[in-house]
Amino acid sequence: MNLSHGDKYYQNIYAKEVKKIETKLSQLLKGRKPKSLYDPCEYIITGGGKRLRPFIVLLACKAVGAKFSDAYNAAIGVEVLHNFTLVHDDIMDNAKIRRGRPTTHIKFDTNTAILAGDNLIAEAYHSLLKDCKDNDKLVLDTFTKGITEICEGQSYDKDFENQQKVTIDEYKTMILKKTAVMVQMCCSIGAQIGKGTKKEVRALENYGRNLGMAFQIQDDLLDIFGDEKEFGKTVGGDLIEGKKTFLFLKAFEKAKGKDLAELKKVITNSGVRKNQIKKYRDLYISLGVIDETEKEVEKYTKYALRSLKNINDSESKEMLIWLANTLIKRSK
Amino acid sequence: MNLSHGDKYYQNIYAKEVKKIETKLSQLLKGRKPKSLYDPCEYIITGGGKRLRPFIVLLACKAVGAKFSDAYNAAIGVEVLHNFTLVHDDIMDNAKIRRGRPTTHIKFDTNTAILAGDNLIAEAYHSLLKDCKDNDKLVLDTFTKGITEICEGQSYDKDFENQQKVTIDEYKTMILKKTAVMVQMCCSIGAQIGKGTKKEVRALENYGRNLGMAFQIQDDLLDIFGDEKEFGKTVGGDLIEGKKTFLFLKAFEKAKGKDLAELKKVITNSGVRKNQIKKYRDLYISLGVIDETEKEVEKYTKYALRSLKNINDSESKEMLIWLANTLIKRSK
Repeated sequence: MNLSHGDKYYQNIYAKEVKKIETKLSQLLKGRKPKSLYDPCEYIITGGGKRLRPFIVLLACKAVGAKFSDAYNAAIGVEVLHNFTLVHDDIMDNAKIRRGRPTTHIKFDTNTAILAGDNLIAEAYHSLLKDCKDNDKLVLDTFTKGITEICEGQSYDKDFENQQKVTIDEYKTMILKKTAVMVQMCCSIGAQIGKGTKKEVRALENYGRNLGMAFQIQDDLLDIFGDEKEFGKTVGGDLIEGKKTFLFLKAFEKAKGKDLAELKKVITNSGVRKNQIKKYRDLYISLGVIDETEKEVEKYTKYALRSLKNINDSESKEMLIWLANTLIKRSK
Repeated sequence: MNLSHGDKYYQNIYAKEVKKIETKLSQLLKGRKPKSLYDPCEYIITGGGKRLRPFIVLLACKAVGAKFSDAYNAAIGVEVLHNFTLVHDDIMDNAKIRRGRPTTHIKFDTNTAILAGDNLIAEAYHSLLKDCKDNDKLVLDTFTKGITEICEGQSYDKDFENQQKVTIDEYKTMILKKTAVMVQMCCSIGAQIGKGTKKEVRALENYGRNLGMAFQIQDDLLDIFGDEKEFGKTVGGDLIEGKKTFLFLKAFEKAKGKDLAELKKVITNSGVRKNQIKKYRDLYISLGVIDETEKEVEKYTKYALRSLKNINDSESKEMLIWLANTLIKRSK
């Protein structure tokens, strides 16, 4: 299917919906007490971000013939859930900055961030439940299964820290659970709330899962090739923490001799110093890892687009196509 | 209503159901991967405990005319949820021992305990959803609202650490949310799954809430007057951590002069040393705090029992009465 409009047109719809989502998020917890719990919760959910996941819920809902307005609460629910994962992950990863601001456990303290994250899980369910009607059991099963897989993915990610050898396959299982399943879940919930057929739900789930894979691998790329200000995180942060990203594992697979020894140092030292990032970036380039990573991102994007064949043509379907193509080119 | 049987009879039913619950809990996560996530999860949920909350779900379900077997999964769900709160609370409270074993963050590490707790929330929903049929939205609303209130209660509890003055009313709001609401929720969910009338659901909710209040105040009492081996926690642990328990606040309300100065020291020093516990225990006794605390426990127990008037007589109702009376006399 060809897009009927230019980039600007879809960009406008996205921006308009993001604005609505921001408004809803900023009102969600207003006036709730105790402030010691809800101030950090508000800090988290009003911290910006692309709001891609809620937007995808809306698109999936509309793509099966329903309206955006059928799924706003569900959209808020998945965004709040996503924000919960960020807060707890940031504690575990010892991350200091998120979206250009101090992370929640730094701004407040670790205990506060643990509890705020817990509370956001409940808020996520509250929001989702508002959009659930007769088919709520399946929607809630999907949502809950998503949380389980996200926790499993995060656990694999933690395991990798102390694991000398991680294969590309193990890495893919990890990002599938930690990132891609959440996007799949956004599509699934949107489509289910929009009363899509089983075939439509499955097609959109496939779209979401593959988009999520492409998104995460692209994220690994941006971590080291992105612009710090635009990206909102320390560039090379994954290397500093010794994270076994797609790029690192690919480099490890291809490197020999002196290059391999340099990469092994990252593992033995559990990371690198900031002034070493350029060296590793150059190594990635000389090993051809960048090309391979970009190809991987394109591959998953193609899979995502292909599964949209099973969805009727509509503006929302165009938006999903536009979104997948746009994410490949993103710089943050 | 008078009980038709002796203590032993009810004790047997309780023991039998606890055994079933233990079996179900031990099978819940069997063989799941990654082990880095599920080993700590299993450690948590198979760590024993009274299993009162799931038993109350079963009783509430049967008390409105349904069967225990209608609510086993829901019962497991609330117990798993309860266990999640224990793990995260233990991190926040820096607790080292729980049920006579190292707490999860000590046995494993803090990050592992955070993630295991998160995952247990999802497991709790999974279990609950298995027993949800057509009325699932209300049951899930109740469950989710419970989680929110528990987080709010825990936040108040954390606030109290740094709050010089805490009133008995503030304390009661805190334990209402942190402890009593969970017992209320157990009753509510059991009664809803058992298709109780609105009146029955409300009566059982009242029973649960008041029982929860009695239970928590009794817990404060046991912390300092319990037997360490039987109680499974360090006796006087609340004092050591400078926790503002019902006993402490009551003592604070009543003390004058030198006694008051001693109590103020607990606040300024954020706790006491182990060898000072006896001194404070004696102070509680001389101030008459023990009597007042016991009266408070009895008051809430009476409220709990009174609300059972609106429930038809049955063996399960007898069990609920027996349970309330037994909890007053417990030593652990």
